[in-house]
Amino acid sequence: MRFVRALNTCAFSLHRRVISKHFLHCSLLKPYIGAHQFSVYGTMAAVADEDSLRRALAQKQSSIDVQGGTVRQLKSSGAAKLDIEAAVQALNALKLEKASIESQLQVALAGAADGGSSSASRDAFRQAVVNTLERRLFYIPSFKIYRGVAGLYDYGPPGCSVKSNVLSFWRQHFVLEENMLEVDCPCVTPEVVLKASGHVEKFTDLMVKDEKTGTCYRADHLLKDFCKEKLEKDFSLSAEKAAELKHILAVLDDLSAEQLGAKIKEYGITAPDTKNPLSDPYPFNLMFQTSIGPSGVSPGYMRPETAQGIFVNFRDLYYYNGNKLPFAAAQIGQAFRNEISPRQGLLRVREFTLAEIEHFVDPQDKSHPKFSDVAKLEFLMFPRDDQVSGQCAKKLQLGEAVSRGTVNNETLGYFIGRVYLFLTRLGIDKDRMRFRQHLANEMAHYAADCWDAEIESSYGWIECVGIADRSAYDLRAHSEKSSVALVAQEKFSEPREVEKLVITPIKKELGLAFKGNQKMVTEALEAMEEKVAMEMKADLESKGEVEFHVCTLGKNVSIKKNMVSISKEIKKEHQRVFTPSVIEPSFGIGRIIYCLYEHSFYTRPSKAGDEQLNVFSFPPLVAPIKCTVFPLVQNQKYEEVAKLLSKSLTAAGISHKIDITGTSIGKRYARTDELGVPFAITVDSTLSVTVRERDSKDQVRVDVEKVASVVREVTDGLSSWADVLKMYPLHSSETAEE
Amino acid sequence: MRFVRALNTCAFSLHRRVISKHFLHCSLLKPYIGAHQFSVYGTMAAVADEDSLRRALAQKQSSIDVQGGTVRQLKSSGAAKLDIEAAVQALNALKLEKASIESQLQVALAGAADGGSSSASRDAFRQAVVNTLERRLFYIPSFKIYRGVAGLYDYGPPGCSVKSNVLSFWRQHFVLEENMLEVDCPCVTPEVVLKASGHVEKFTDLMVKDEKTGTCYRADHLLKDFCKEKLEKDFSLSAEKAAELKHILAVLDDLSAEQLGAKIKEYGITAPDTKNPLSDPYPFNLMFQTSIGPSGVSPGYMRPETAQGIFVNFRDLYYYNGNKLPFAAAQIGQAFRNEISPRQGLLRVREFTLAEIEHFVDPQDKSHPKFSDVAKLEFLMFPRDDQVSGQCAKKLQLGEAVSRGTVNNETLGYFIGRVYLFLTRLGIDKDRMRFRQHLANEMAHYAADCWDAEIESSYGWIECVGIADRSAYDLRAHSEKSSVALVAQEKFSEPREVEKLVITPIKKELGLAFKGNQKMVTEALEAMEEKVAMEMKADLESKGEVEFHVCTLGKNVSIKKNMVSISKEIKKEHQRVFTPSVIEPSFGIGRIIYCLYEHSFYTRPSKAGDEQLNVFSFPPLVAPIKCTVFPLVQNQKYEEVAKLLSKSLTAAGISHKIDITGTSIGKRYARTDELGVPFAITVDSTLSVTVRERDSKDQVRVDVEKVASVVREVTDGLSSWADVLKMYPLHSSETAEE
Repeated sequence: MRFVRALNTCAFSLHRRVISKHFLHCSLLKPYIGAHQFSVYGTMAAVADEDSLRRALAQKQSSIDVQGGTVRQLKSSGAAKLDIEAAVQALNALKLEKASIESQLQVALAGAADGGSSSASRDAFRQAVVNTLERRLFYIPSFKIYRGVAGLYDYGPPGCSVKSNVLSFWRQHFVLEENMLEVDCPCVTPEVVLKASGHVEKFTDLMVKDEKTGTCYRADHLLKDFCKEKLEKDFSLSAEKAAELKHILAVLDDLSAEQLGAKIKEYGITAPDTKNPLSDPYPFNLMFQTSIGPSGVSPGYMRPETAQGIFVNFRDLYYYNGNKLPFAAAQIGQAFRNEISPRQGLLRVREFTLAEIEHFVDPQDKSHPKFSDVAKLEFLMFPRDDQVSGQCAKKLQLGEAVSRGTVNNETLGYFIGRVYLFLTRLGIDKDRMRFRQHLANEMAHYAADCWDAEIESSYGWIECVGIADRSAYDLRAHSEKSSVALVAQEKFSEPREVEKLVITPIKKELGLAFKGNQKMVTEALEAMEEKVAMEMKADLESKGEVEFHVCTLGKNVSIKKNMVSISKEIKKEHQRVFTPSVIEPSFGIGRIIYCLYEHSFYTRPSKAGDEQLNVFSFPPLVAPIKCTVFPLVQNQKYEEVAKLLSKSLTAAGISHKIDITGTSIGKRYARTDELGVPFAITVDSTLSVTVRERDSKDQVRVDVEKVASVVREVTDGLSSWADVLKMYPLHSSETAEE
Repeated sequence: MRFVRALNTCAFSLHRRVISKHFLHCSLLKPYIGAHQFSVYGTMAAVADEDSLRRALAQKQSSIDVQGGTVRQLKSSGAAKLDIEAAVQALNALKLEKASIESQLQVALAGAADGGSSSASRDAFRQAVVNTLERRLFYIPSFKIYRGVAGLYDYGPPGCSVKSNVLSFWRQHFVLEENMLEVDCPCVTPEVVLKASGHVEKFTDLMVKDEKTGTCYRADHLLKDFCKEKLEKDFSLSAEKAAELKHILAVLDDLSAEQLGAKIKEYGITAPDTKNPLSDPYPFNLMFQTSIGPSGVSPGYMRPETAQGIFVNFRDLYYYNGNKLPFAAAQIGQAFRNEISPRQGLLRVREFTLAEIEHFVDPQDKSHPKFSDVAKLEFLMFPRDDQVSGQCAKKLQLGEAVSRGTVNNETLGYFIGRVYLFLTRLGIDKDRMRFRQHLANEMAHYAADCWDAEIESSYGWIECVGIADRSAYDLRAHSEKSSVALVAQEKFSEPREVEKLVITPIKKELGLAFKGNQKMVTEALEAMEEKVAMEMKADLESKGEVEFHVCTLGKNVSIKKNMVSISKEIKKEHQRVFTPSVIEPSFGIGRIIYCLYEHSFYTRPSKAGDEQLNVFSFPPLVAPIKCTVFPLVQNQKYEEVAKLLSKSLTAAGISHKIDITGTSIGKRYARTDELGVPFAITVDSTLSVTVRERDSKDQVRVDVEKVASVVREVTDGLSSWADVLKMYPLHSSETAEE
């Protein structure tokens, strides 16, 4: 996601705010390029290696050129056959050496790109996961019979079930346990709301068009692809040129439309499909636009995030919470982004489910009463400084990260800890997950701190949860636009004396001096911060006159002593009125689920050893179906027991599936392992049955009437499979396994 | 919702299908006008009453006119004072009689419109409910700080919780218990899908515009308002005129644009706000339109229903189900309708949550294995014939309704029964709920049968669930448009001999005779149904030539004997390939929730008797918060017990709220009664606490460590409050109650 910036104008600070705000929100759907391929930080050794190899290659090439000249000269001058042969041999030796350096470079490049594992094996792994997901209908390309629409996917039955389990757990873990106020707002949003938030003006990507066919491309994608291709495949690239291309990849998100356009021209990049010339880059707004009501005069958009629905309700929610801070509101819902050309399958889509929390807190007190519950947690963190100095993510204790100031405050730290617990309980591998702090240039100037939960997948490190201390920005933006005060009060138990800055513009003098511009000058004077105002006071007293920059006029004006009075006064106050800060954990549910699929997938040989079987090792909490029921043989008695079991499982709220097909038990296990079903009940007697656990393939015998409650206890997390193993006799019948 | 129909063209059957289909789907959001006000059926006695009163009124008026004339004549002819006085007295007596008839008429009208209760008391009740809902943030007009958008509402914290409870129970009751395949498809939908379903062409309402200001109105709403106003307030209306207006109200949905326009002209209806003249009615498509991707050449819409997402996935879902019928797919999600001018608050909105089931079944076997589970249920049903013959809805036993053929088939009956159980378990009053069968003119010609679950509210009878046997229409429409066969197979255990109709157009002859039209004629011949084809065969054999209507040409052509061969042949078949029928229960979640609010709301006097307190009597299943925890007095020991309780409730998954404000217990109870919280735990000792039930105000004493499990059992439906009363000692302390 990219934004056009207006760096040189006075409007900068506003734009910068808006831009950076979007940057934060948008970045949720964008893998952090710097950290996943061609890292500017991280694998420094590999970079050095690549560099020296490119230099060696260039040297070898020039040796070859020289030696080639020698051979030609010997030949043309009719030198002795033996001399010529010796020279050719030397040339061939040089070529062999060059080939060897090239293959070393190839290995080095693959290593740098993949952090070790080969690109081919990662692609093969992803293909295996995606094939299984699609074949078993975890997802389906939407409107497939009409040849689909890029960036839109359906959740098929097991996928839908996983999603609804993830969302239920999210509600339990965040909304219920933290007593959050959940709301549910519409997707259709009138323009005024998204003007206030800045989306109408700035929620854009830069686009180029094929000048002949009109096909659209993301400008940064084309430049990125060009640089990657060159770096990976062009061995004649000089070390200097390679460094330049890598630099472009690192700063790609910061390039302006002009800079992007210039690079595209410089490198002669054309439309990928037709090789036609491309237009200059221009911004394309990523919101789906529509019109509300029949008149056509009320533009609206499909919301690009759910957060705005909470911000506009702040006043009511604060009241609902008894006018007390802190409190958190939460929302789960669809969000929409009309991507220019969606790539990366399920990771970049045009419609997706977000789960967002807005935790409102007094900016003067960001402590959290439950922080001690998470302070002892240790996990991979990747602070800003470590990224810049080229280190790797490392294990930190959360409590220490907060007390040392690495994480800005307790509340932000508390949410980082809660997100860690949420993701690991879902089944995300803690060793392939890290919390990465935003770099200074990624973060809005108003933001206090920002951390992304990134999960490693075959696509690299993927941002799945953004946790940002957004300060008072959002509430202020809507306060200004709506003229409704979105503020909180702290009532003092007794009145306090407060020193207050008082700026009194002298309207008459200002009117005489500035006429039509008086209002703008007056407002700019009133808006001065304490430091600026006190400097002006001192200057006016010493010099009688001072230059003053008025943003809204875009120029300096001269302020004289008689035009403004500046002083500090002691006032008694009974309460403090302030705009709360907001700490926002924002979850891309589809991305988390996709990463969960990759982390849960493995293969193991079938018993006969003739094929590899797929398994999803979902924890019971997220498994789409909790257990299957198989009668061992087709037999009325067993089928009746199966039906009885099914009834008791339904009553216990356990999703399950009966499989009475005649296939072998082994095949039936394989089928359900591939759906990630954790438990299989084989009916092989009318009194007790065999319960088999998916990953260990351990089997125990349990009485028919106890089975439902045993399965329920394990799926509800009240006991573990280890507990079950202790309670019930192990079963090792060969008949029941593959 | 209205549709422009093309009744006289050959395309009729297609349009009719499409129209009626939409009619069915759309009607979900439209209260059945005929049944809720100015009923053409139903309260026949009231109608007769009104009729004779209007006639009496007209007679009385003409007597008054005559007597008035007499008085004038007496006065002008200078008659005796006594004679004049007597005549005036007679005139006044007539006027009094007229006034008395007028007030009788007023009562009769109110009775007919409200089914007994007065319109004023219904409005007052609704206002009380809506005020409470809005004050306690069950809902919030969306984007309120920007003055909102008509037809868009947020669910605030308690409303969001009720909604999520209703949806969870829906999943448990339908998806889990019936083993349905749940899917989750995007809201953004490409045009081709909605062209196939007919929405692009026909999903319209008729709109008129104020010719000067451009303000838009629904044409039928203006005509309806005019008729209602006249009928309610114009006592000079003749019985004939009244009958005419009532007829219009009854057939309002069937009027064409031309007919509506003519009536608007005839009655001189103008724009309500400005009295300006109105444009002719024209169709306005109710879908929110947008554009997919950056090029602007791929139109898309926000889906108007979730059903299409299931239909387009039929092939994959059938495969997922092991290529077996019957099976059901389900989807919960947002749907969008860009209403011209939303009215009726939460009942007609522009974005809403639908929960839809598509149950696919062999058209030759619509029996249901679990029908006996619901056959004994008895509830209010309103069959077509009873509506037409002016009876009321009456209690029927579902099993009998199916066996007598009132309900078309067992599967449809099964779903009617399951919907009844669903709604009553949510807390809908079974005596204010009925299943109304669609009249012939409401139903698509292809539909086998259609029943709406209607719930009575202060707005009248509201359609909340539609249950339709839609036959094979939807799958066929998508098969045709996508050229992907959406069919099922029945494999025969041994091959069957089948007599098959074989129609062989002789292309050469047809080409000679029809040239460019040959293809259309050929296709029409091939599409003949058996009866038509056999008649043609007979006619061709007897007459050698026959007139044949070709729909796609819009005219008759002459078919000669040498142009087509028609015969019946015996073929061996190994399987039967057919398009499944679909039975579709479709739930308007927001409407159900609104009706539930009305059915759950009551007031009772406070203990002091000085005010009326609001209560929502939600069953624990749907209550937004299951219990509250109050320390009786502000005291560290009690607050610690409260915190302990809170922990154990959270662990048990029970949503709850601690209230440690210093207010009286009575006030705290009132506050939570108004949120519909079923249980309150008052901490008045460190060992055992008081648990109070909301509606009975009964209190029992329960040990601290048992409380969480007692509350969980009742809220999970494993035990009832009556069970709790038997188990635990009743508590009658005055201190704890208001």
